[in-house]
Amino acid sequence: MKKIITISREYGAGGHSIGKKVAEILGVPFYDRDIVRETVKASGFDPELIENESEEISRSDSLWKNLASFSGAYYKDTQSAIRDVQAAVILRFAQEGPCVILGRCADEVLREADIDSVNVFIHADDVHRAMRLSALTGSTDATELKKMMEKKDAARHNYYQRYTGKKWGDSHNYHLTLDSGALGDEACVRLIVAAAQDAE
Amino acid sequence: MKKIITISREYGAGGHSIGKKVAEILGVPFYDRDIVRETVKASGFDPELIENESEEISRSDSLWKNLASFSGAYYKDTQSAIRDVQAAVILRFAQEGPCVILGRCADEVLREADIDSVNVFIHADDVHRAMRLSALTGSTDATELKKMMEKKDAARHNYYQRYTGKKWGDSHNYHLTLDSGALGDEACVRLIVAAAQDAE
Repeated sequence: MKKIITISREYGAGGHSIGKKVAEILGVPFYDRDIVRETVKASGFDPELIENESEEISRSDSLWKNLASFSGAYYKDTQSAIRDVQAAVILRFAQEGPCVILGRCADEVLREADIDSVNVFIHADDVHRAMRLSALTGSTDATELKKMMEKKDAARHNYYQRYTGKKWGDSHNYHLTLDSGALGDEACVRLIVAAAQDAE
Repeated sequence: MKKIITISREYGAGGHSIGKKVAEILGVPFYDRDIVRETVKASGFDPELIENESEEISRSDSLWKNLASFSGAYYKDTQSAIRDVQAAVILRFAQEGPCVILGRCADEVLREADIDSVNVFIHADDVHRAMRLSALTGSTDATELKKMMEKKDAARHNYYQRYTGKKWGDSHNYHLTLDSGALGDEACVRLIVAAAQDAE
């Protein structure tokens, strides 16, 4: 049974709660922002810098280029260094045993290290995502909800593209992709658990 | 239970046999090239023209443009007409009850008609596909196998793009995408059946 599962997800598609439930059912650890905190502990980098690096700093190419041009080689090297430490943390988690890892290009980190995993991408249409985010944030402002989704999706898209050279959300990069809006969260949980149990 | 299932698939990824098994398990009809034959019967178009239209004629944009320029408006109108007849046949199948429909942009036809379906895309890495095609065709010529895959994939890609305006294989266009190479055919069958039974 391949019980290392990586989950990439669109903002508001429920990837966090789906991943958490999968981990509970399989009885394995669930890693999300913990990875960042682990990275901080392991690396000695400035915690604030690492928090920023994660997704926000790579939000847009123009922002990235501006930062790079202002700060010269410093940011570039720091980014690479942070990425290496983050990958090391992900690999340590994977080597400790079965688990569910959310985001952070964990799929690519494990693929490069030739460690078997079931790589999942969860997406949903804008209406399902907006309703979920509205319930989470309390906002009922459609324009604000749309902006939240666009901003976070662009950040994740760029982060994945920068670190893997591949297209975030392209089915070829995952073993399983799921539309949580059409299928529902519970079905997604069941399908991921089934895929993990099916995989040799 | 949403038992209308559409399957798009890369050449050599096993979509045909996986779809057939899913239909057997659910006890519903399985439609593949039959759709084309039905189209022929229903439309009175030249059978050879319709066979060609399906995927091969839209293999490359340049081929398409050449044909269009040689034959003027004739091909363009014929293509649109064939597409409409094909869509009508797919809709009739769907209205007759639960079924599995392979290819032919059935996902888009049903989406446009607002008919619920579980839309699946099946892909696999080149090595798994080559081995499957080698077993099917008897060819052990790697170059030939690669060419087969590229040609058929390009045809399907262009066909889907032309008729839907969307990107073939982009996870957002499907409720479920599966890597049959990594997961195995039997797991794919089980996951599609589970998704169909889960869907309301």
